[in-house]
Amino acid sequence: MHSFMPPDRLLLGPGPSPVPPRVLAALARPTIGHLDPLFIAMMDEVKDLLREAFRTGHALTLPVSAPGSAGMETAFVNLIEPGDTVIVCRNGVFGGRMRENVVRIGAQAVMVDDPFGRPVDPDKVEAALRAHPGAKALAFVHAETSTGVASDARTLCRLAREHGALSIVDAVTSLGGSPLEVDGWGIDAVYSGSQKCLSAPPGLSPVSFSDTAVAAIRARRTPVQSWFLDLTLVMGYWQGSGARAYHHTAPINMLYALHEALLMLREEGLEAAWARHRANHLRLCEGLEALGLTLPVDPAVRLPQLNAVAVPDGVDEAAVRRSLLDRHGIEIGAGLGELAGKIWRIGLMGHGSTPGNVDRVVAAFGDVLGRG
Amino acid sequence: MHSFMPPDRLLLGPGPSPVPPRVLAALARPTIGHLDPLFIAMMDEVKDLLREAFRTGHALTLPVSAPGSAGMETAFVNLIEPGDTVIVCRNGVFGGRMRENVVRIGAQAVMVDDPFGRPVDPDKVEAALRAHPGAKALAFVHAETSTGVASDARTLCRLAREHGALSIVDAVTSLGGSPLEVDGWGIDAVYSGSQKCLSAPPGLSPVSFSDTAVAAIRARRTPVQSWFLDLTLVMGYWQGSGARAYHHTAPINMLYALHEALLMLREEGLEAAWARHRANHLRLCEGLEALGLTLPVDPAVRLPQLNAVAVPDGVDEAAVRRSLLDRHGIEIGAGLGELAGKIWRIGLMGHGSTPGNVDRVVAAFGDVLGRG
Repeated sequence: MHSFMPPDRLLLGPGPSPVPPRVLAALARPTIGHLDPLFIAMMDEVKDLLREAFRTGHALTLPVSAPGSAGMETAFVNLIEPGDTVIVCRNGVFGGRMRENVVRIGAQAVMVDDPFGRPVDPDKVEAALRAHPGAKALAFVHAETSTGVASDARTLCRLAREHGALSIVDAVTSLGGSPLEVDGWGIDAVYSGSQKCLSAPPGLSPVSFSDTAVAAIRARRTPVQSWFLDLTLVMGYWQGSGARAYHHTAPINMLYALHEALLMLREEGLEAAWARHRANHLRLCEGLEALGLTLPVDPAVRLPQLNAVAVPDGVDEAAVRRSLLDRHGIEIGAGLGELAGKIWRIGLMGHGSTPGNVDRVVAAFGDVLGRG
Repeated sequence: MHSFMPPDRLLLGPGPSPVPPRVLAALARPTIGHLDPLFIAMMDEVKDLLREAFRTGHALTLPVSAPGSAGMETAFVNLIEPGDTVIVCRNGVFGGRMRENVVRIGAQAVMVDDPFGRPVDPDKVEAALRAHPGAKALAFVHAETSTGVASDARTLCRLAREHGALSIVDAVTSLGGSPLEVDGWGIDAVYSGSQKCLSAPPGLSPVSFSDTAVAAIRARRTPVQSWFLDLTLVMGYWQGSGARAYHHTAPINMLYALHEALLMLREEGLEAAWARHRANHLRLCEGLEALGLTLPVDPAVRLPQLNAVAVPDGVDEAAVRRSLLDRHGIEIGAGLGELAGKIWRIGLMGHGSTPGNVDRVVAAFGDVLGRG
């Protein structure tokens, strides 16, 4: 057994995205203590940088010490209590995962289903909110990583607010890659991942909670079922002007990397990053269509950072992915759930969203499909 | 705001421990995908290396994608169901945290208390097991990081087995630093951390479950309350000979680092590492006692990797720690819980356990206390 030397890969799947050398260098800096005063100061910078990326002034904005799935669970276990009703929108795999979270809390999930590959329908959501007037929250995925579809988060959050429900928004794939306005849209709870459009390694989940959400947490009748994810405890470490209370040992080096990735995003400018993702997405669509491939999602709701491509009839989708990996060193994603075998997923996320990468993956598709 | 450049620190606290350059170099290798066939092969090596470190043949042995607190929660939420009774030993802060886990599941925690600074008393445990014949599990901390005390895990696990209870063992600080025999002692569920005696960065929690524990998970009447930590789902990604099912995005780079740290442990040899920790511990005791300092824990149960030192009367413990950090670049730990202000904690963990580091911290104490 030897030291692991990863192969040379271009990561154009649904995440992780390519991590730039600057972020890898930050990751490898010497580990210091999680209560070191200089580390605490860096944590404060991470919170400020996250607020910029989320476009929010929420005091409770921090990275959860685990991947995006734990960020999702943080939102649900802190805001929802046994017996609550939650309207859950499902137009892809991650809406189904939200349902799992609700059910395991002992709460009721009212499902609003739309076909995989279509956005959440606000009319159905409004009907569900009307039919369940005491619903505690409306939960939906802003950027469905499993299908490449954006939903209208602004409208959905407005509907939640009008009906007195908290909004819980999955922004795992949107943060840093396409417009996301946490304060502008009135999002109460949002979670994301480090390894998508931020291009840090996987393992952290940035989250942000509104004051309304914090009030709901403080008004709970029951303890949060997870000790590790209990925000009333996590806040004692991440917030406050004086000494921070030890809760769990923070993932020090991963936080160095996230700090650096967020600094790079600030240097580029958030809106410039959104525009870059959009331009490279259009270049990809053009290139793939020139090969005769079809992008099944309506152009009006396509995510620039995650592109669904229809597998042509008679083509072995897994064999194509394998050839892209083995012959071209390019990783793309398979379909998930009911779209398995029907689509490929090409991610142009964060540092991976460049014209050169677009040209490389289009050329590789041409080669593998014999359509060059 | 600039890139974060950590200060030069010698980490001799309760963890994180100093991460060797080889591990930092592994951490910074290019990120690849969590479903990449070469990454899956590396995961299999990590499992094998963890089995060696834990001294177990347990099939279900893997690192949880979050810090040790999440490893603790993984053990409890998978094995314990609402209404179960768990005997929880508390002789330090982490026994109290175990209780929190049990209570939040809706199970009953029967506490066996011993003073902070003393090991768990097997006679009290036996009495508790007799008094609660249907107890699902006995939970205790093998190496109490908050006090520097080792408990007799072999005897406690035997008692659990004799009374038909599963054993849940916190080995966060023991793994890699002092004898731990998961199979030899018949431990059913054990969890640890990456940042103690393995000297990888913080953020992962190695766990191992016996076949008896796995059978208990499979026989559950209720779903595991955490989706993220549900081992029946996590296993689909970490186990199996064929394709691995996506559950959550693994913390790729952190797993490179853990792989390298475990490889270094294998190269040294587990028993050689235990002997090194013991020798440097004895050197530290000698040096501190020569300065007139007292180590309050009974020598028979002292942990070599975590040394409690009594704060002398009239000495400002926080000022001493601050001087060690500012003047000598050495981080040590404060007392936790009821020992706050009463003890310092000096960790000699993993890569930090060297004669040179012992001499450096003893000399620094001499300087700061004016006893040089």
